[in-house]
Amino acid sequence: MKAAIIGGGVIGGGWAARFLLNGWDVAILDPDPEAERKITEVLDNARRALPGLYDAALPPEGRLRFADDLAQACADADWIQESVPERLEIKHSVLAEIDAAAPASAVIGSSTSGFKPSELTAKGARAIVAHPFNPVYLLPLVELVGEAAQCARAAPLLQQLGMYPLHVRKEIDAHIADRFLEAVWREALWLVKDGVATTAEIDEAIRMGFGLRWAQMGLFETYRVAGGEAGMKHFMAQFGPALEWPWTKLMDVPEFTEELVDLIAGQSDAQSGHMSIRELERLRDDNLVGILRALRRTGSGAGGVITDHEASLSVPVVDPPVTAQQQVPVTWTDYNGHMNETHYLELASRGTDGFMGLIGADAAYVASGMSYFTLENTVRYLAEVHAGESLAVTTYATLAEGKKMGLRHLLTKPDGTVAAEVDSLLIHVSLETRRSCPPPTDMMDRLEAFVATHTKALAALSER
Amino acid sequence: MKAAIIGGGVIGGGWAARFLLNGWDVAILDPDPEAERKITEVLDNARRALPGLYDAALPPEGRLRFADDLAQACADADWIQESVPERLEIKHSVLAEIDAAAPASAVIGSSTSGFKPSELTAKGARAIVAHPFNPVYLLPLVELVGEAAQCARAAPLLQQLGMYPLHVRKEIDAHIADRFLEAVWREALWLVKDGVATTAEIDEAIRMGFGLRWAQMGLFETYRVAGGEAGMKHFMAQFGPALEWPWTKLMDVPEFTEELVDLIAGQSDAQSGHMSIRELERLRDDNLVGILRALRRTGSGAGGVITDHEASLSVPVVDPPVTAQQQVPVTWTDYNGHMNETHYLELASRGTDGFMGLIGADAAYVASGMSYFTLENTVRYLAEVHAGESLAVTTYATLAEGKKMGLRHLLTKPDGTVAAEVDSLLIHVSLETRRSCPPPTDMMDRLEAFVATHTKALAALSER
Repeated sequence: MKAAIIGGGVIGGGWAARFLLNGWDVAILDPDPEAERKITEVLDNARRALPGLYDAALPPEGRLRFADDLAQACADADWIQESVPERLEIKHSVLAEIDAAAPASAVIGSSTSGFKPSELTAKGARAIVAHPFNPVYLLPLVELVGEAAQCARAAPLLQQLGMYPLHVRKEIDAHIADRFLEAVWREALWLVKDGVATTAEIDEAIRMGFGLRWAQMGLFETYRVAGGEAGMKHFMAQFGPALEWPWTKLMDVPEFTEELVDLIAGQSDAQSGHMSIRELERLRDDNLVGILRALRRTGSGAGGVITDHEASLSVPVVDPPVTAQQQVPVTWTDYNGHMNETHYLELASRGTDGFMGLIGADAAYVASGMSYFTLENTVRYLAEVHAGESLAVTTYATLAEGKKMGLRHLLTKPDGTVAAEVDSLLIHVSLETRRSCPPPTDMMDRLEAFVATHTKALAALSER
Repeated sequence: MKAAIIGGGVIGGGWAARFLLNGWDVAILDPDPEAERKITEVLDNARRALPGLYDAALPPEGRLRFADDLAQACADADWIQESVPERLEIKHSVLAEIDAAAPASAVIGSSTSGFKPSELTAKGARAIVAHPFNPVYLLPLVELVGEAAQCARAAPLLQQLGMYPLHVRKEIDAHIADRFLEAVWREALWLVKDGVATTAEIDEAIRMGFGLRWAQMGLFETYRVAGGEAGMKHFMAQFGPALEWPWTKLMDVPEFTEELVDLIAGQSDAQSGHMSIRELERLRDDNLVGILRALRRTGSGAGGVITDHEASLSVPVVDPPVTAQQQVPVTWTDYNGHMNETHYLELASRGTDGFMGLIGADAAYVASGMSYFTLENTVRYLAEVHAGESLAVTTYATLAEGKKMGLRHLLTKPDGTVAAEVDSLLIHVSLETRRSCPPPTDMMDRLEAFVATHTKALAALSER
């Protein structure tokens, strides 16, 4: 699949990274002489962060090229994404050129945060709104607005990129999310202007409180819970009248003077000026990876999107089997500047899960009331692993003896370096009695067959 | 320390839990005959979630009693928190009673989300605004507004509770955070009323996108990053003019009709009605614990508050040393319904860190360029551990031989059950060369002394 990215700023670069790391070829068009450097920096950030979300390998990265003209970039693209500056006359002229050059089957998406599709297409060019959120390579949300057939074609492609298409059924200026951002921005400008709070205090008021709720539940489900047993109606009866209170007095628009801009820029420098934008970006991405990995555990919101996407990633079948793959996120490292000892075992444990699936001890089997419990793990640490490095877990069956199963996991880097050997001894159990019991014969047969071939494979390895 | 909680709803109950789990005695006054049941449920949730944030034990829980009258509840309290319904005449009469009964040194805080301190104290009663966020036992933010001396007394007490006091310097209706919530609420009511989006779509628009940013950075730092290399001024030049665009057209207040209430309550039922409020609360809390534990890794926002609070928790000195303590969070469990094998090692690894501190290989030593790396870990799993159970790690030194250090960690439940034995073999290294080297003699002396006493202690254990 091929994508053309027209306009390679923060948003266009983020789109390029999202496509590339999901295996698409990407052509970028941007007149800025600095474009290549900037895109490369965004890509470096994305390579550092995105794969760390998954417990499996993403497809091999696509090819990136910088196109010389728009027609060349769009000629054979399946998706063309316009991310040029937010001025309607520029959008009109670029979208007309794209429409003329694009295959009829291509999705033409605009990253506009404000314009409605009826405005974008007023001059006849074909396009829908496909509005993403920064950083595009980590945040799943894309607001799709416009012609139904094109939106319907776009949605499954976005899902293949691990994104969450939200079809906005009725066009409105700024779509949905940015309406909220605008309302909050307006209020924040007043608070700073009136000296009620600084930019740093406002950020704390958000991230120490409701920001933590919104990352997982959004607005209405949060309030549903706040209403307690009495429910949503009770909550609304309590909070609704506040609309009439003086809280709403700041609704008019503050004058956007140079003074106000200086006040805010100065407070922001005092708050965050000790870090470069790149450092802030990396901190943001590390936090996003950590938050998203936390949400995977419950399947809430964006965590569920990642798990679904991961299930769609095809794992090549080899034997001895690769039972887990992982790019090491920064949050897995410790004070020694390398991957903490715990996560070697985390990967091996995931390898055990993968191997259990191969002998039929999968999720359905566990749901039926049987499983394996681990009796003992021995981890031999052979090489340091750093953030951003990839590890593959190859699992060898070493023992099939009644209720007992022995596994050896080798954690290997792409260059063949074995970073750790993990020996695991497991026992087959009934989840009802929590006691050991023999596995069914078909499972035992499969395990014994693996032990036969894997013992030989391990012997061959040790002879090398 | 003693707290009196006047009004035991969702917010008052959350305050009670926050105080109790941090070792304060708490007296609750609430006329609702159901109050005791409701408070107990909030407390159960808090006991399940809050301790899981920390890598250390919280102090022993304080005593809870239900008071018969206000004077009895307040008589010997250090902090009195009013959380009665949001009507000014009720607040006035309750605060007057509290003021009459309270010791002069007590902090009198009001949980009001809307009233200014000048309004609360208009009838002469002493009080400040101490406005928390739901769930109070997990979210750190407390907005402090009002008389400076009382706010200054309140702030360090809140920090001892693991909370983040934000001193609002200029009083304003609804303080800071709720102004934003109100602006977003207003916008959301329009979007639902006009049929642009359902409550579920609005929640996705938030939690799939900017909600993930706000949990860690808030508003201004996020935009600073979005501005890219050109900085905050560039961002504002881009986004500022949007204030004049049609985006702001929904600023007037939607009429709060019964129809609108029914529309929203109905959509909310369709979205979340398959889960009870208690289930939603537990899901919310599991997600919050996961997100907050992720933020601990970088120290951002609320993660930093937890780390700071943890550092202030005193660990009793015993030998053999208890090097780590943990209540098991739900996010540590797996498909077998018990703590995943990985986290046994995570606790032992933290035990190794704790023991290293005892022989002088602490953070400052690591910063000086020396450390220990693990060569091998063997984990013997002896008992299942479930979410909510507590584990203490006792660490025995078993080997001091040149560069090598051997440790045995016993992971023990409060009833004495040993859940796992972990043997760790470590080697002293230079962080510059990444190669082994001998530890300094004073460190070696301390390690050898531990080995001498711990070998005897282990032998005594095995004789039992």
